[in-house]
Amino acid sequence: MGKANWRIGVAGLGTVGAGLIALLAERPAFSPTGRTAVVTGVSARRRDATRAADVSSYPWFDDPVALATSPDNDLFVELIGGAEGPARAAVEAALAIGKPVVTANKALIATHGRALAALAEGAGAPLKFEAAVMGGAPAVKLLREALVGDEILAVAGILNGTCNYILTRMEAAGLGFAEALAEAQALGYAEADPTMDVGGHDAAHKITILAALAFGAAPTLEAAEVEGLAGVELIDIRLARDLGYRIKLIASAQRSGAGVTVRVHPALTPLDHPLAGVDGVLNALMIEGRRTGRIVLQGAGAGAGPTASAVAADIADVMAAAARPVFQVPAGALEPFAPVPATASTGRAYVRLLALDQPGVIASVTETLAEAGVSIDSFLQKAVAGAQGVPIVLTTHTAPEARIAAAVAAMSALPTLIAPPRVIRIARI
Amino acid sequence: MGKANWRIGVAGLGTVGAGLIALLAERPAFSPTGRTAVVTGVSARRRDATRAADVSSYPWFDDPVALATSPDNDLFVELIGGAEGPARAAVEAALAIGKPVVTANKALIATHGRALAALAEGAGAPLKFEAAVMGGAPAVKLLREALVGDEILAVAGILNGTCNYILTRMEAAGLGFAEALAEAQALGYAEADPTMDVGGHDAAHKITILAALAFGAAPTLEAAEVEGLAGVELIDIRLARDLGYRIKLIASAQRSGAGVTVRVHPALTPLDHPLAGVDGVLNALMIEGRRTGRIVLQGAGAGAGPTASAVAADIADVMAAAARPVFQVPAGALEPFAPVPATASTGRAYVRLLALDQPGVIASVTETLAEAGVSIDSFLQKAVAGAQGVPIVLTTHTAPEARIAAAVAAMSALPTLIAPPRVIRIARI
Repeated sequence: MGKANWRIGVAGLGTVGAGLIALLAERPAFSPTGRTAVVTGVSARRRDATRAADVSSYPWFDDPVALATSPDNDLFVELIGGAEGPARAAVEAALAIGKPVVTANKALIATHGRALAALAEGAGAPLKFEAAVMGGAPAVKLLREALVGDEILAVAGILNGTCNYILTRMEAAGLGFAEALAEAQALGYAEADPTMDVGGHDAAHKITILAALAFGAAPTLEAAEVEGLAGVELIDIRLARDLGYRIKLIASAQRSGAGVTVRVHPALTPLDHPLAGVDGVLNALMIEGRRTGRIVLQGAGAGAGPTASAVAADIADVMAAAARPVFQVPAGALEPFAPVPATASTGRAYVRLLALDQPGVIASVTETLAEAGVSIDSFLQKAVAGAQGVPIVLTTHTAPEARIAAAVAAMSALPTLIAPPRVIRIARI
Repeated sequence: MGKANWRIGVAGLGTVGAGLIALLAERPAFSPTGRTAVVTGVSARRRDATRAADVSSYPWFDDPVALATSPDNDLFVELIGGAEGPARAAVEAALAIGKPVVTANKALIATHGRALAALAEGAGAPLKFEAAVMGGAPAVKLLREALVGDEILAVAGILNGTCNYILTRMEAAGLGFAEALAEAQALGYAEADPTMDVGGHDAAHKITILAALAFGAAPTLEAAEVEGLAGVELIDIRLARDLGYRIKLIASAQRSGAGVTVRVHPALTPLDHPLAGVDGVLNALMIEGRRTGRIVLQGAGAGAGPTASAVAADIADVMAAAARPVFQVPAGALEPFAPVPATASTGRAYVRLLALDQPGVIASVTETLAEAGVSIDSFLQKAVAGAQGVPIVLTTHTAPEARIAAAVAAMSALPTLIAPPRVIRIARI
């Protein structure tokens, strides 16, 4: 098929950008649709930085917006990052003139997804972001294309490799949170400032994008309820294991009659759950469809190779010229995001208490639950040698979360408790 | 987007066909691209059969070829089944006039894939078959589209739910093969004539299609090496478990310098392998990419809901009008399928022997392996109460399969063995 080449402009030459340049250089015949992709321009903050790929042979642009609007490329790849600044300006500039855009920028899509989708569809330009979620594992394509014949009920995933690595190492090696984090930083799995990862914010960006695709709702980052790893202690990981669970940072989104719920929080995950066995820096996503049942996708969630491969697949899709809305439905038809109020949520919980070793303690704890209308599923009292007080762990049956919170508040006031109760939710799907 | 409807003709109204009719009826607004899909004609062998969906309101065609060529539909869905006969005739007739085709027919694609791809691409008509492999889990889309940026090294999967159910029940309930098969038949998981499933042929059709997509090679069913479940006994499942493995029917395809290997056979799968934990009728596929590493996809491999959902996703893709080759590369560029000769294969094996309980037996067995140049990885001798002889189980390190076969042949001649050795390969990826 002797058609002209597809000319690609690449802005941002960090790990992923250099990985993409290397991929296209290693595969000069990358032509999934009979046309070849060639890089005709690059841009980054510093021209002389040390990079994993040689970019000296490509025309250089100091200004990514100039690259985005240059007539010398047919497709703009944005790998700068960040919800604002040059990334946003360049993507908007490309879409405004009808140029297709491929990006790995989760913050940009989670924050400005609806407006960008409207801009893209108005101009007839594809906007693709497979690399924004789960690296090389095609979570975006699954929800946008492969499951469009079904209705999605819920998605739940392990979307942050840093947190999963930390939890895996805490359990496997008996490390405390700070030790496991330091190890992840030494191995390059965590940033010097780990707030985005361990605070759950990175996972919140990703689940916001997946929720938009799954439910045809406008991505609304601020609607996500986010709890990071900070409160998870080694003792919880061990007690959870005794009860048949592993603790994972679960990012989930569900649709119910009341609306859409998006949350990120540590969750006790049953050992036979498909997400419980996902270890180390791996990511995994479980999708529950009305007709297809459960589908699970697992893969490396980050890294130059997987992420560049996802960017290249998006480039191939643009070259294949499918006419599809950016999210599951046209931007103008995206529903407003209707978050379910926390007071309407139900669930199960794990509650850990540290109590004085004296008679009547268990009775007073169970009494607070009974008064709040919360029933107990399992109960474990386990002495820890040399520790002050007696740890008590219980799990509840499904109950309104407001009632569980009320019971925990009542427990907190008990004079027999040495420390505030620790509550971790139990995974729901 | 006030465009005209997409008019769909559906031939074959069994489980999947009725499921598709029901799906489209339940989702009258199924319009992933701004246009609505409506059924404008149906065909099946018998008009008056009892079906899970009411088809009386759709125009009826006795002849599927007439439906395939009717100007009253824009897309032909073939759910008849079979590599020849009316299914092939109708698909060829539709493609010949440039009409898009969606099919769930694994036998047709595994057998005539290359010729149909050439016909489709010559006429500019899409030919899609997501539902042919793994029901609602999009294995075809992953390989055809999502991983096109990477080079696939190997694929390995559990692609037949009947076999996986039988193996799962043998292990979990201690059933013999015949008992587990009878249970699967009673539950509707196995046909009255189970040969296609338990003989490995169904899985061979599916891995042939996946190999073609992964490696850009012409689908060549006869190149697949196929061994079914017949030789797997409960004792092997138990001994394998003692050694840290589960036995699964693994369908795999690998590319090496020597060519492409496609096989289906029972394989010992390490307990920490992503395919080892896949139980019951579930299917799963592991893809090894040069850049993306391992990606695992898991889901229901059959059933009206999942399969109809996959057909609907293909219909949506056709409506989105992407211009892509049927396999990973244009039909004219598909490589001939270069199977690796069995003599060039290497691997590890599990060997079970039943020996007389007398001195020197172990020495004579290990001698045959040493003479063939095969080294032993683990060795287990386990008496079974009340049984005749002593079971000996060993696993080998990686060796040419021809050498392992030579060692086993030499062992078979030992007078101290009560029964022929049983060899099961150990999973490689």
